[in-house]
Amino acid sequence: MSILLVCQHRESESWYAAFKEKNPDLDIQVYPDVDDAEGIEFAISWRHPEGLYKDFPNLKVIASMGAGVHHVLKDKTIPEDVEITRIVDENLTRDMSDFALLNTLFHIRNYNFYIGNQQEKEWETKAYQQPQKTKVGILGLGVLGRAVAEKLHKNNFQVSGWSKSKKKSDAFESYTADQFDDFIAERDILICLLPLTEDTEGILNYKNLKKLPRGAKLINLARGQHLVENDLIQLLDEGHLESAILDVFQEEPLPKESQFWAHPKVLITPHVASMTDPQSVVDQIYTNIQNVKSGKALLNRVDRSKKY
Amino acid sequence: MSILLVCQHRESESWYAAFKEKNPDLDIQVYPDVDDAEGIEFAISWRHPEGLYKDFPNLKVIASMGAGVHHVLKDKTIPEDVEITRIVDENLTRDMSDFALLNTLFHIRNYNFYIGNQQEKEWETKAYQQPQKTKVGILGLGVLGRAVAEKLHKNNFQVSGWSKSKKKSDAFESYTADQFDDFIAERDILICLLPLTEDTEGILNYKNLKKLPRGAKLINLARGQHLVENDLIQLLDEGHLESAILDVFQEEPLPKESQFWAHPKVLITPHVASMTDPQSVVDQIYTNIQNVKSGKALLNRVDRSKKY
Repeated sequence: MSILLVCQHRESESWYAAFKEKNPDLDIQVYPDVDDAEGIEFAISWRHPEGLYKDFPNLKVIASMGAGVHHVLKDKTIPEDVEITRIVDENLTRDMSDFALLNTLFHIRNYNFYIGNQQEKEWETKAYQQPQKTKVGILGLGVLGRAVAEKLHKNNFQVSGWSKSKKKSDAFESYTADQFDDFIAERDILICLLPLTEDTEGILNYKNLKKLPRGAKLINLARGQHLVENDLIQLLDEGHLESAILDVFQEEPLPKESQFWAHPKVLITPHVASMTDPQSVVDQIYTNIQNVKSGKALLNRVDRSKKY
Repeated sequence: MSILLVCQHRESESWYAAFKEKNPDLDIQVYPDVDDAEGIEFAISWRHPEGLYKDFPNLKVIASMGAGVHHVLKDKTIPEDVEITRIVDENLTRDMSDFALLNTLFHIRNYNFYIGNQQEKEWETKAYQQPQKTKVGILGLGVLGRAVAEKLHKNNFQVSGWSKSKKKSDAFESYTADQFDDFIAERDILICLLPLTEDTEGILNYKNLKKLPRGAKLINLARGQHLVENDLIQLLDEGHLESAILDVFQEEPLPKESQFWAHPKVLITPHVASMTDPQSVVDQIYTNIQNVKSGKALLNRVDRSKKY
């Protein structure tokens, strides 16, 4: 049994090393250097090229390197009997919370303004808003959304969250689906942490973002498909939104021709909100490699019939 | 009795408005528009031009707009009988802690790298260090240093502090003056929050910063005089230090010819770590205006014989 390691836009050396350290006898082939496609039964995968997996007749499992599996599920050419697993790692949740906190502080302290000024050699101060006076809204209150809400609450922000059903928490005020307009009307900063579904695709569009108060700021940490990119550019250029931090995009890597790169009101980060540390997840994936061999049930298996 | 409002590199309108709202009858003259120098008994001041106050024969008090009074004390032309007061405002301490947290997260999440890449339209990820694995050292454990240590500890950083005397805290490990080399040798990030004295001026010099481990990062939130600016540039260019965030400078505003402006490893902020909100301190200054009139003792009076 051979293992295939596929990762695009991320370095693979540390993954290779972590598994070799766990078991030096593992036969690991690193895409695109594959010399025995028939021997591959298990793939460790991040953003594989679409269609790749139909060339591996004995593939049994695709293990996503992250908590997200959209990058696997969207490929409709993957044979139905291939199982898919995700990473479950509380570090990823904590990392996401840290990243959301960083970006929220970045916004209230006008860092976009200062970074632009530095390029112009301009020394100019701008009054800041304190966390205790800043209303942050979180779209999506799943595991990540809740963790971010709690982190921001702990750091004195006024936090509200929007989700399908009412949530109970001392850390945030809970709004439900039908209260969207009330929710969004008063947010100084909006953070998107929704799952990507038919209902949420394109939710960050002109009509919805226009409902934010003038001068509001956006942070998208979910998926590029939540955002209608040209709508955001229009709202920034009209001055309705003050700035945006984007970690995810419709197309990644973000194409060179994207207007976001040179936009003075946009900070781009290359999908780095939470990145799996191979050392901290090698055990759960290695256990699944053993489970495939012995026919045991897989850890952290994804139900392919669900949307997310 | 007239009040003089002097502020350079900061807007004065919100200060003027706050005092007029408190008492519309106050006679406030905004420097440089002074038409009655003899009537001025009380100055509200931020970074006045050196020598200014010898032209006000009846001046009794200079109230600093901030917690710092170095900008007043350094002017040796101020008559000895003029009293000096500072701001005491717990918001300033909290704001400093938020700013230190922002900059610490900025460093561990490689934001300097991503901001540079955005200018080049480069999409490249870089592994990050988690707070729980990051050793942050704080120079100075006064009110601000302790508050920053506690804030970072609360957000999972490993915190140590260096000060003259041993401090007790669950939030950080305490090093004393004679343990400087041990303290600095293991810090991933060094934050300067020292008072400016003869002993601490120039403490961030080549010899001391070279004792940080290779790849360490600096944050200076104290005074520009703590840092030997050319030494920092040399250490960044040699690759010994990875990046620096500077909020304070030898000369402010930072001169256009400074190498810091265009340095790819330096983030410049224009002395904005904590900025007094006039609304939140108008009462304490107004009380002192009343106290001068009635001959009562001043609140938050500074002992001019002390160094800080």
